[in-house]
Amino acid sequence: MAVKINENYLMLKKNYIFSEINHRVNNFREENPETNIILMGIGDVTGPLPKAVIDKFEEAVKEMAQPETFRGYGPEQGYDFLINKIISNDYIPRGIELSEDEVFISDGAKCDTGNIQEIFGLYNKVAVTDPVYPVYVDSNVMAGRCGPMGKDGRYQGIVYLPCTEENKFVPDLPKTHVDMIYLCFPNNPTGTALTKEQLKKWIDYAHDNKSIILYDGAYEAYIREDNIPHSIYEIKGAREVAIEFRSFSKTAGFTGTRCAYTVVPMETVGYDTQSEAHSLNKLWNRRQTTKFNGVSYPVQVAAQAVYSLEGQREIKESINYYMNNAAIIRESLRNIGLRTYGGVNSPYIWIKTPDKMNSWEFFDVLLSRAHVVGTPGIGFGPSGEGYFRITAFNTQENTIKAMTRISDLSI
Amino acid sequence: MAVKINENYLMLKKNYIFSEINHRVNNFREENPETNIILMGIGDVTGPLPKAVIDKFEEAVKEMAQPETFRGYGPEQGYDFLINKIISNDYIPRGIELSEDEVFISDGAKCDTGNIQEIFGLYNKVAVTDPVYPVYVDSNVMAGRCGPMGKDGRYQGIVYLPCTEENKFVPDLPKTHVDMIYLCFPNNPTGTALTKEQLKKWIDYAHDNKSIILYDGAYEAYIREDNIPHSIYEIKGAREVAIEFRSFSKTAGFTGTRCAYTVVPMETVGYDTQSEAHSLNKLWNRRQTTKFNGVSYPVQVAAQAVYSLEGQREIKESINYYMNNAAIIRESLRNIGLRTYGGVNSPYIWIKTPDKMNSWEFFDVLLSRAHVVGTPGIGFGPSGEGYFRITAFNTQENTIKAMTRISDLSI
Repeated sequence: MAVKINENYLMLKKNYIFSEINHRVNNFREENPETNIILMGIGDVTGPLPKAVIDKFEEAVKEMAQPETFRGYGPEQGYDFLINKIISNDYIPRGIELSEDEVFISDGAKCDTGNIQEIFGLYNKVAVTDPVYPVYVDSNVMAGRCGPMGKDGRYQGIVYLPCTEENKFVPDLPKTHVDMIYLCFPNNPTGTALTKEQLKKWIDYAHDNKSIILYDGAYEAYIREDNIPHSIYEIKGAREVAIEFRSFSKTAGFTGTRCAYTVVPMETVGYDTQSEAHSLNKLWNRRQTTKFNGVSYPVQVAAQAVYSLEGQREIKESINYYMNNAAIIRESLRNIGLRTYGGVNSPYIWIKTPDKMNSWEFFDVLLSRAHVVGTPGIGFGPSGEGYFRITAFNTQENTIKAMTRISDLSI
Repeated sequence: MAVKINENYLMLKKNYIFSEINHRVNNFREENPETNIILMGIGDVTGPLPKAVIDKFEEAVKEMAQPETFRGYGPEQGYDFLINKIISNDYIPRGIELSEDEVFISDGAKCDTGNIQEIFGLYNKVAVTDPVYPVYVDSNVMAGRCGPMGKDGRYQGIVYLPCTEENKFVPDLPKTHVDMIYLCFPNNPTGTALTKEQLKKWIDYAHDNKSIILYDGAYEAYIREDNIPHSIYEIKGAREVAIEFRSFSKTAGFTGTRCAYTVVPMETVGYDTQSEAHSLNKLWNRRQTTKFNGVSYPVQVAAQAVYSLEGQREIKESINYYMNNAAIIRESLRNIGLRTYGGVNSPYIWIKTPDKMNSWEFFDVLLSRAHVVGTPGIGFGPSGEGYFRITAFNTQENTIKAMTRISDLSI
């Protein structure tokens, strides 16, 4: 007898996509130490935190220096001052009412989208779009919901919803019953957004099937077009069937500062084996209070400042800046005949690789000949093969430079 | 067909101990709005962050304001600058060598001790001391390792190791084989510390049984006596069988700032069903990189400053302050004839309730008659019945006031 490991971990793919990218970039750097490489792979912001945020962040740090204003353990669910700002800024103006205990502050949408599956049973059928943000899949593999990976690179227990040029990257409804549906719109990696009508079909499906939609809205702030919902709760019936994940990372440059939130409406339920309904809000609250201890107080104060007038002005400016990069990328690549998608309501541009190159081949061409790093589509799932992701998170200078280099390749 | 919940959650005890305390305190406050209540229940620091920490924290926030020094995503495992300080200050002076990739920075020991069970199989036998920090038990109940709770308040799948006056709160080795052993020393809630010789027996047991020890050292900074190990790795053979959790919360007042770390030595292994050994370090790394995105950069810089000369001086002073409170509590309670334990190498004083009162009865007596809030021992497990925890985390003034009030009760 001996301590057993969680053998589900052995079913994970060996290399997480970004490790492999780092590996290849480092190798190239060692062989070409003089080369200036432009990174457009990982979806990480490059601009600093807004000044309004910095000011409040500093003030909150100072509060921690005085016994009168010092804060120890806060509520695991986050402080009301931040929760109320979120509700009154991100939801009320769109006609959505939320109560304070439906919003849970956390240190990242990656944690929340990774942890949410814990409150669900192991025998639920999981559906993901393909390509997809790997955390949704990997966290379910680790939990034991997916079984082994087949030869086609797909886990046998997961229902994949291909998103390709053929369906304009809008997933079709599953043909079989599924219980947990991960949707991310505006989408990472394809950059596609869903209209209200398109999203409505999913709400209806979830009602008909008693499924739950796990809706990742991390890129909401990049939406530019009118008919694109900023929250899934803009659509009638969503409160009963959807949990929404949002983040300050891409909205306000918090990737290194860490703050996000998750909305679990009181109406959402899951069922036990006796078909009795249980509140998902209560289950998530129990999960968070047991295994999490809240977000750093100064960070929550900093996040609150995102909603100040000055903060809103600054984040709009910075998002405009990135979206201008996105436009530069789209235009440059189209000019050399590449088919590109996204970049309109999202910071991601999804490229169809030319000449039937596979996505790692295209990666190697861009790295070795243009010294530009992007992300091979295959890293996001089998249907990502033949595609490639470039992000708008860079300086305008670097973006232009990278596009010039790629254009000069005459691919 | 419908989405199923994780039914293990239904086996959790309904009220988490601190919710029930809050509930009773709030009720008392509503009925007695004028009463000054002294809180000695939750183990939360009250002093501000050290000045050395504040200064660096502020500097790091300022770095986030400039594009040149801004930090986006950091390594999920934490920054090397902090990891190296931890190794060179907390381990090297005690003769322990660790490599950088054996230390994982996180946002709390609660998260880490709650999440660590994920990398282990569901059919491991878990042992906990009784009384115990509830997170160890609840996280395993949620995962499905414990089965239902029996009438004796014990989960049928868990091996409880009673710690009572009879064994001086030093747990006996389990009589049957166990795979995962949670140990917390200096102990929460009993305040007991283990000597090297006492801890050595557990290392030997783990080697003999191929078990893993999950060692929570959150209260290490409160150790005063010489023969008490500060790290489990001071004991030969521990690297193969122990994972250690440490935190800046109780050491440096980080309960509201959030930073901790976990050491997973390269030698630790778990086994698959073919009895093949797998590195626990690799599994934990995979868990953290998939579901966690690192600790806030300014917080890591702040934690680094704990190790500066000035930071060390300040935290020693603040710990001395709390330990002086502990001495006041011990002495006052002994003077009125109560039997108390702990408080020598830990900020917790564990009291045997007088007159065979149960622990909630004693709670109600202290709240209603002395207006002092502590924690009923039963909240930490069945063997905590008849005991009561008081913490040294308060001002000296409040501590003296509380002790005077309790002494005046003539219980």
